[in-house]
Amino acid sequence: MPRVSPERLHTRRREILAGARACFARHGYEGATVKRLEEEIGLSRGAIFHHFRDKESLFLAVAEDDAAAMAETIAAHGLVQVMRDLAAQADQPETTGWLGSQLEVSRRLRTDAGFAREWEERKQAIASATRERLSRQRQAGILRDDLSIEVVAGFLELAYDGLITHLAMGSRGANLDSILDMVEAAVRRPAPR
Amino acid sequence: MPRVSPERLHTRRREILAGARACFARHGYEGATVKRLEEEIGLSRGAIFHHFRDKESLFLAVAEDDAAAMAETIAAHGLVQVMRDLAAQADQPETTGWLGSQLEVSRRLRTDAGFAREWEERKQAIASATRERLSRQRQAGILRDDLSIEVVAGFLELAYDGLITHLAMGSRGANLDSILDMVEAAVRRPAPR
Repeated sequence: MPRVSPERLHTRRREILAGARACFARHGYEGATVKRLEEEIGLSRGAIFHHFRDKESLFLAVAEDDAAAMAETIAAHGLVQVMRDLAAQADQPETTGWLGSQLEVSRRLRTDAGFAREWEERKQAIASATRERLSRQRQAGILRDDLSIEVVAGFLELAYDGLITHLAMGSRGANLDSILDMVEAAVRRPAPR
Repeated sequence: MPRVSPERLHTRRREILAGARACFARHGYEGATVKRLEEEIGLSRGAIFHHFRDKESLFLAVAEDDAAAMAETIAAHGLVQVMRDLAAQADQPETTGWLGSQLEVSRRLRTDAGFAREWEERKQAIASATRERLSRQRQAGILRDDLSIEVVAGFLELAYDGLITHLAMGSRGANLDSILDMVEAAVRRPAPR
């Protein structure tokens, strides 16, 4: 067997994750058959499952990757920006981003207690990123200062869960941008009048 | 067979619905076996299914009853009050109210396209009650007047979906009352300063 550099392995892993993400987004977890995964990724099942034990491991790798990207977006731009990204993805007929994995994670969190326990660590990382960002915004005088960070974070998380449910039902709603503006305005310090 | 007055039939139907609601709330749709329904309602399966064709019909009757009660509460007190009622029920170890049927309806809306079509009429009745209430509140000068009724209603519905998802995951969160205060404040005209 030829020697493969760690960089090459890493690149191949990223390629597989990108194709798998698109396939899960398009067909859902159940619908993403091994045949469809092969087609979307452009590799044989042997090559794919050399890097990931099985379809479940592949999905978890996609979802963990997305959770990490989500925490980064929250740290830089806030949870409302994550919601705007998800709403924008739902508009595109070819969704290849976070939305697919987030819908599946949300479904499993509700229906699979074992998964919910395993996922707790990622959930905590996202929750911490949200609270750290809100604390920085409060120091910067952007956030309203009459409520605790916990209450404001809980409000944003309620809106996030509502958005995921809304998108999971295939609803789009022309008003989603304005609704997310309302969510954002509700956590900001009111402009002086 | 003895003759039974329409009033007696109606009362018996209400008793069956109340027991079935408690049983579905406690055990979920799948867990509400015919045996458990008999115990909770206090009638034999023969008596129960004399009034309702099968378990599915019984659940739908409970859910329709709850949807009608929800539309009435919205008309009188608004969608935020419905959310407060649901949050309060989640606090009680013995939930016997709307929450059980709302969680199951929400699950079916996401996973069962046939049910989603059949349920459309009730969904529309609840949506109309929300918009009519908001219009009255706008006329009374209580509602903020810089956004359309559609956007404000969409914001409240997003929060409602988020709450149902939150409660479906068994989360409670000590801050739910304060979070719902934030939701309510976001749709009201700001107090003059």
